[in-house]
Amino acid sequence: MSTYTLRQENREAANVRERDMTNAIRALVMDSVQKANSGHPGMPMGMADVATVLFNRFIKLDPLHPLWPDRDRFVLSAGHGSMLQYALHYLIGYPDMPIEELQRFRQLGAKTAGHPEYGHAQGIELTTGPLGQGIATAVGMALAERMLAVRFGEDIVDHHTYVIAGDGCLQEGISHEAIDLAGHLKLSKLIVFWDNNSISIDGPTSLSTSLDQLARFRAAGFYVQDIDGHDHEAIAQAIAQAKLSKQPSLISCRTLIGKGAPNLQGTEKTHGAPLGEAEIAAARQAMGWAHAPFHVPEDILEAWREVARRGADERRQWCVKTAASPFGDELRQAVKKEIPETVFKDLRAFRRLHLEKATKVATRKASEMVLGIINNATDLTIGGSADLTHSNLTITPGMKHISANDFSGRYIHYGIREHGMAAAMNGLALHGGFVPYGGTFLAFADYARGAIRLSALMGQQVIYVMTHDSIGLGEDGPTHQPIEHLAMLRATPGLNVFRPADIIETAECWELALRHKDRPSVIVLSRQNLSMLRQADSTENRSSRGAYVLREPAEPRALTLLASGSEVEIACTAADMLWGQYQIPAAVVSMPSWELFEMQTLAYRRSVLAAAPRIAIEAAARLGWDRWIGEKGAFIGMQGFGASAPASDLYRHFGITPESIVATTRKLIS
Amino acid sequence: MSTYTLRQENREAANVRERDMTNAIRALVMDSVQKANSGHPGMPMGMADVATVLFNRFIKLDPLHPLWPDRDRFVLSAGHGSMLQYALHYLIGYPDMPIEELQRFRQLGAKTAGHPEYGHAQGIELTTGPLGQGIATAVGMALAERMLAVRFGEDIVDHHTYVIAGDGCLQEGISHEAIDLAGHLKLSKLIVFWDNNSISIDGPTSLSTSLDQLARFRAAGFYVQDIDGHDHEAIAQAIAQAKLSKQPSLISCRTLIGKGAPNLQGTEKTHGAPLGEAEIAAARQAMGWAHAPFHVPEDILEAWREVARRGADERRQWCVKTAASPFGDELRQAVKKEIPETVFKDLRAFRRLHLEKATKVATRKASEMVLGIINNATDLTIGGSADLTHSNLTITPGMKHISANDFSGRYIHYGIREHGMAAAMNGLALHGGFVPYGGTFLAFADYARGAIRLSALMGQQVIYVMTHDSIGLGEDGPTHQPIEHLAMLRATPGLNVFRPADIIETAECWELALRHKDRPSVIVLSRQNLSMLRQADSTENRSSRGAYVLREPAEPRALTLLASGSEVEIACTAADMLWGQYQIPAAVVSMPSWELFEMQTLAYRRSVLAAAPRIAIEAAARLGWDRWIGEKGAFIGMQGFGASAPASDLYRHFGITPESIVATTRKLIS
Repeated sequence: MSTYTLRQENREAANVRERDMTNAIRALVMDSVQKANSGHPGMPMGMADVATVLFNRFIKLDPLHPLWPDRDRFVLSAGHGSMLQYALHYLIGYPDMPIEELQRFRQLGAKTAGHPEYGHAQGIELTTGPLGQGIATAVGMALAERMLAVRFGEDIVDHHTYVIAGDGCLQEGISHEAIDLAGHLKLSKLIVFWDNNSISIDGPTSLSTSLDQLARFRAAGFYVQDIDGHDHEAIAQAIAQAKLSKQPSLISCRTLIGKGAPNLQGTEKTHGAPLGEAEIAAARQAMGWAHAPFHVPEDILEAWREVARRGADERRQWCVKTAASPFGDELRQAVKKEIPETVFKDLRAFRRLHLEKATKVATRKASEMVLGIINNATDLTIGGSADLTHSNLTITPGMKHISANDFSGRYIHYGIREHGMAAAMNGLALHGGFVPYGGTFLAFADYARGAIRLSALMGQQVIYVMTHDSIGLGEDGPTHQPIEHLAMLRATPGLNVFRPADIIETAECWELALRHKDRPSVIVLSRQNLSMLRQADSTENRSSRGAYVLREPAEPRALTLLASGSEVEIACTAADMLWGQYQIPAAVVSMPSWELFEMQTLAYRRSVLAAAPRIAIEAAARLGWDRWIGEKGAFIGMQGFGASAPASDLYRHFGITPESIVATTRKLIS
Repeated sequence: MSTYTLRQENREAANVRERDMTNAIRALVMDSVQKANSGHPGMPMGMADVATVLFNRFIKLDPLHPLWPDRDRFVLSAGHGSMLQYALHYLIGYPDMPIEELQRFRQLGAKTAGHPEYGHAQGIELTTGPLGQGIATAVGMALAERMLAVRFGEDIVDHHTYVIAGDGCLQEGISHEAIDLAGHLKLSKLIVFWDNNSISIDGPTSLSTSLDQLARFRAAGFYVQDIDGHDHEAIAQAIAQAKLSKQPSLISCRTLIGKGAPNLQGTEKTHGAPLGEAEIAAARQAMGWAHAPFHVPEDILEAWREVARRGADERRQWCVKTAASPFGDELRQAVKKEIPETVFKDLRAFRRLHLEKATKVATRKASEMVLGIINNATDLTIGGSADLTHSNLTITPGMKHISANDFSGRYIHYGIREHGMAAAMNGLALHGGFVPYGGTFLAFADYARGAIRLSALMGQQVIYVMTHDSIGLGEDGPTHQPIEHLAMLRATPGLNVFRPADIIETAECWELALRHKDRPSVIVLSRQNLSMLRQADSTENRSSRGAYVLREPAEPRALTLLASGSEVEIACTAADMLWGQYQIPAAVVSMPSWELFEMQTLAYRRSVLAAAPRIAIEAAARLGWDRWIGEKGAFIGMQGFGASAPASDLYRHFGITPESIVATTRKLIS
């Protein structure tokens, strides 16, 4: 605001300078896309005015301290417009974004990837590109800000989350989930700019939508403004108003896509392809930009660098306030997201206790018990569920839920919004200060796929609690019974998939999910009760090796049974029957995590799998299991979709029983 | 309407009777859920009044002819309330829904599955349960009705699509995509009842939403009414008004969840569990329903059967009109969805031509050429894309797009709405009359997962055209480059996944997708150009066997290279190098469809795979490939996410090259 007011004192000169600053963006965008011969100039050129005003007059960030906790978060939800962000980063002076990086736009190893990639360059707060993810992730960021502010004080936590969203972002379903949640929680520091250019890839948006977007956002509880997205004063006033609002804001910015390209602007031709040398020359002339490609005159660059200087001042003031705050150290600590060692100590004690008691519970129930311990021992965890709290068992005693009037709680009712939940959790994790976990049924991982993939791609510690993990859920039937979901998740790079077999493994898997700070975990849990299977007392976390021999027969193995989750108990029963009835010595291997098993040495993996024939048992699709059973092995699981019936009937119906394992064994080793 | 007016003549008696009819539903619901000891009584009891009025006074269907093309479509989007549908089916007299089926609710093999399952019982128009799918699929049904009406006349195509949706359906993101599209296309015969009971599983909906739902639907172009959902006259008037509207309708029905259960109604306790014997007894008393469990007195049953008689009359009248219509036969033919044999003849000619010409094109381009032939030879196909028309190449010459003012076209601009598109295609397929296909990028299969799974579960012929199928898309980077998606789709039961290697296989795979009437197909296509690889002239569709030996070396095989899509060409080059440089005779096997290969005889599969060591090459995740390469084989593909760079750089960077295959071979067979 101060900067905004300051500019008014010498409006004429400031306007001229700001116009030049905007042209610098447009020129850099045209040049970079042209050199790459690939990319999207339309959005960055259309939104160059908005971005200039936002960065020049409002935004709070310090390129030399890109992780400063109280920086504003800038989210380019329309990620195909990545050149807008790269141009801004060069102009305000992020040290890792010299002009050479813009010249290497979209080339191997460049920081200037086709879409903004979290971790590639400083100041990129999240990966975007799949439309709608940015706005939905931003909801989590804005929520994190409010929660940290309540914990540590508004004097040291007070920043905004700015989003640039396109028509695509707002057509995607995830945007509905996101804005409904943001409006409900009155996340007033979330400010969304809609690049309202009426153009999508296929042509005018009128080909596919007639929605009254402003009315839609108002219905969701947003403060809505509608402006000319090329009028700098209108933009500045709208941002100032939005910052005053008690609701989240939508600023509809009516823009011309590709603004500045005299012959192509306003058409889908500027959306996703270089403008061509001739049009770029014409644009230079029309803008009055006589400078060479990739060249920004020193005075204009100097004007842009003022943004960084303002940010640095603000950061210095914040450091002073933080030093004075009783919560300064705690904030710095929270942002590191270090799970205290007491959590792990308590979890080991939990394991010892239940090993002795041989506690038989559903693993979803075991997870609830484990969460009770974790949530007691650390404040970092933030729970939630997509309206299945008492099925996922994700709430623990004393957890207060968050509402628009009270952000001091630790539990989020995400609503029936799996995708929005997953994206919001990404935002909570990216913002810093929290380790989010959230529940739904495993089958509804489908709905959250887009955001789960981004958790993995961004390497964020988000923990998915996915219960009702097989036909074991029973009567709800095939729509609710996961079949292909384990394969889908296991095939996803950078994602831990845990399917614990009993209460002990559940505690171990939770511990591993907490230890793996650089990746998301999915903990897949049963609805039905499962016996405690672990025999030896051990402080070792056996799940940490991904797979291990749970039962080794007295005689040399004639067979190895591989299983995960609820099917490990069935394998154990089968092993007993094989020995009792036929004196066939069978080992049972529990495989709670394929990913971790893959990371073990070849020697360890061989010792676990061994040379004897193998049968895998899992109430899911076969895909992937052949890696472990080999060509001579067998698989007992699901061949198609499930059915609606009590769980025990279904296991019999689909032949996932000890008897069936015994019969298959007899065929296999005869 | 006629029936609605008729009732007015003797309103008093009619009201009493209709009240009894409603109580019959409530009693059957309570009894069935109690007997199953599982299920959701709350929604059916809350919406029993709406359902009674809709069925008693309006709906047009004939239980003895459940596939009558001009029937109204009834969509229970809130599928957990399945007992509402089963009670209705029993009451109006579907022959396959005797009282015994209600008594077997949620038991193995019963028609009364936990959620309505398409194909299990007559009159179930679609599978529901995953929330939001029903309303989104209904949009496709209502669209199909409009399109058929334009083709064959309003005199013989004139029916409504009625949807019951819950809070969950409307919170899910897919609902946004659906209502935006429905409003845009002014699908005025789509009438959505919102079970506005303010209760979700976790408790009051105010825990997670503050949305003004009515304003939201108005923004999307719906005609919106808000009524007391227990007031029969208000319900009837609202339906009558909705039928007059030129827009799609939302009728907000304010209801009490579990209405009729005196101590529990209005609370989440009635949502998902039996009410208990005591509460059921109290409800019977409060309703004045003195009848035994599962018993409906003859006069009330008789009143319900009147619905069927009215429907039978309407069907008879329709038969007369259809016989008189010049388009009657065509409609009957269209509904069968028989692709004419000329399509397949033309496709064979296409293959012969391009075999001779050795046409080198991207398989997405080949698909466009194939579609040109298909769309020329049949009117059944309806194309579309989620705003990537000119990337997916899904439109062919002369295809007019559909708009609110003109339903005579064959191309749908679905907007940036992958999930909504997939669900709408399910609706088009389920309705009958069309074979829909629709395009997006393969990576965005993620967004459509929920509906793709239902295509498979329902066995619907929906064809997904998914282009940009690997790192071969280049600069757009890891968010756009599929890795785990092939595994995710291949693991899905009942889904054909085709990844053709060249123009010939593309034509073959399209042919197979058209031949497989009972299942969806995903055709996965490259952005980059691919050489024509097929050597021998052959009218045989070699892709029909799923995998086949494309190149057999002159000498006995020392190695088999397995690949799909764009990597088959790389494998061929490697085979040439292996022979030229090291005299290693390597066969190349193209595997366009794992599912079809699985269906071949063991002898055929063995002849293709052979005994020599195998290397699989696919620019995707390894998961699943071990089934084909065996324990001694190798895999060359992606180990993690992709990157942003030109495609050729990426193939080199990730080591998916002929050179890398040669190096791996030398290690493998040394």
